[in-house]
Amino acid sequence: MTSGTAVPPALLRYRPVVEDALRAAVGDGDDPLIRTARYVLGWEDEAGRPSNAGGKRVRPSLCLLAAEAVGGMPQDALAGAAAVELVHNFSLVHDDVQDRDAERHHRPTVWALFGEAQAINAGDYLFALAMRTLARADVPSDRRTAALDALDRAVMEMIRGQWLDISFESRASITEEEYLEMVRGKTGALLGASLEVGALLAGATPELAAGLRRWGEEIGLAFQAHDDYLGVWGDPDQTGKSNTSDIARRKKTLPVVIGLAHAVAGPAVRAAYAKPQLTPDDIAGVVRALEEAGAGQRCREIARRHEARARELLGVLDLAPRWRDELTAIGEFLVERAS
Amino acid sequence: MTSGTAVPPALLRYRPVVEDALRAAVGDGDDPLIRTARYVLGWEDEAGRPSNAGGKRVRPSLCLLAAEAVGGMPQDALAGAAAVELVHNFSLVHDDVQDRDAERHHRPTVWALFGEAQAINAGDYLFALAMRTLARADVPSDRRTAALDALDRAVMEMIRGQWLDISFESRASITEEEYLEMVRGKTGALLGASLEVGALLAGATPELAAGLRRWGEEIGLAFQAHDDYLGVWGDPDQTGKSNTSDIARRKKTLPVVIGLAHAVAGPAVRAAYAKPQLTPDDIAGVVRALEEAGAGQRCREIARRHEARARELLGVLDLAPRWRDELTAIGEFLVERAS
Repeated sequence: MTSGTAVPPALLRYRPVVEDALRAAVGDGDDPLIRTARYVLGWEDEAGRPSNAGGKRVRPSLCLLAAEAVGGMPQDALAGAAAVELVHNFSLVHDDVQDRDAERHHRPTVWALFGEAQAINAGDYLFALAMRTLARADVPSDRRTAALDALDRAVMEMIRGQWLDISFESRASITEEEYLEMVRGKTGALLGASLEVGALLAGATPELAAGLRRWGEEIGLAFQAHDDYLGVWGDPDQTGKSNTSDIARRKKTLPVVIGLAHAVAGPAVRAAYAKPQLTPDDIAGVVRALEEAGAGQRCREIARRHEARARELLGVLDLAPRWRDELTAIGEFLVERAS
Repeated sequence: MTSGTAVPPALLRYRPVVEDALRAAVGDGDDPLIRTARYVLGWEDEAGRPSNAGGKRVRPSLCLLAAEAVGGMPQDALAGAAAVELVHNFSLVHDDVQDRDAERHHRPTVWALFGEAQAINAGDYLFALAMRTLARADVPSDRRTAALDALDRAVMEMIRGQWLDISFESRASITEEEYLEMVRGKTGALLGASLEVGALLAGATPELAAGLRRWGEEIGLAFQAHDDYLGVWGDPDQTGKSNTSDIARRKKTLPVVIGLAHAVAGPAVRAAYAKPQLTPDDIAGVVRALEEAGAGQRCREIARRHEARARELLGVLDLAPRWRDELTAIGEFLVERAS
């Protein structure tokens, strides 16, 4: 169990402007798609009453930080910040349909509320809104097209990762490398693009923007490895998520991929996952097998390895120490957080 | 029954460059998402063998024609042509998931081949690819951002139309106006944007581009009204689609909306649509009721009315007679075609 570390200032100070930029992008009115967007972003509950269920907004904060780090103003990147968060939410809405997850952070998912067909529409709408928000950013048009190109490429890599992830469901074994390749697309691409988009909107050279993107990709890998760890060994009171649900739903997260490849744990995990429904005893047995395989420790090693790689990449970028320190603190937080 | 009219030259002469632009956008390789894109665009069958099942490519042809009509070169709008066709195909892939349609033009739909989860990914991928293709168009960046903005707005209207369409499924009655409002989003928006994007990429004023868009929106309404007509009274040998399937699947197309509002036909249609499964006799009964309600004639009137409105809109635009004549011929073809 990792101890909770304090949220770095950079993940707190941009929050108010991020929320403003998102609200400006989404708009008012009671069109059902706009209402659904407000629900997904956590501002309203399912009855339209005010609520405060937004996430950490890591991606938009990184977008604004990147704009500042390359010598620009956060204002230059506001549309980009809104766009990357909207893309993230688009991916969650479709992901929940694909995985048949009826809850996310203790709230009903969009398909659970409105059916799959409308959830597909809601995700498509968030994606289109993201792109339109970025196309209308208040910066010269060459910066906008460069940022749009970067974000679209990331979305294509994200979808490729998502395709791979779903294809894993029907496979008996997956190598650690294959799993991390999937995560590089599914999680790393958008995290990396969040910085790249912010840097490009602020007028950075393509090289510097790409350098920041690569930092974000590695941090994305570290983040997901730690997230998968928390999915089994996290404290449900802190993560807001049951630490048995990944296994109960027979998900092939990183600890499970590691366990499946282990000579002793493999057969035990495979046998449990072959059942249509896992009992609490089955789940406890899988956790025990994963622990005997050292899967938790291996997850932590992988998270730290990618965080270290990110730090190396940062070292060669032309950034003032202040920004390097802030990015490093965010990277460390994301692999140490308890929630 | 309408008699078949000849395909206007403008819908034939751009086909080769449209296919080239689409192939350049999609790319080669055997990544499953790229292979799925080639399948959806009709170049390959489900086993990857060459095939020739592409549609009429109406939207990209309109895009290139609009570029020429405003005094530009078709080359300026090639990326736009590819983008609008990719968006159209993205919408079909998601639509088939939403409607649970297992076949389109006698070919298995993407979800029927790969499952719903991967079909959602495939649609998302086509959408991202469309946007990226347009963001990289070989014209000045201010034209690209204007075109992206126009296309994204159209996608948002399209999704709004799609949301409305699905919401109709659970409603007992829908007015003709509500139905046409849905069609204006679902079909009209992208048809209109196809011209607008072409015009903007070629350097047209926003006013002229918007005028062409409005023509396309009206033609979209006319097109869909005629399409719905063909869905009941078309010749299956020519349309390539059974003329009982819309009713068998209890779809609320325009003739059905008209029938449901009719004093005599309404109860008969409602009774048939209340059944979980319609027999051939039920279907024949619904068609008879629609005919007694004059629904076919009414569909034709609506199609012609919107085609006439489009022609009026065209009259006030600053276009050379040649282009006005070509657009008029396309409009007439789309409401008279037998297939």
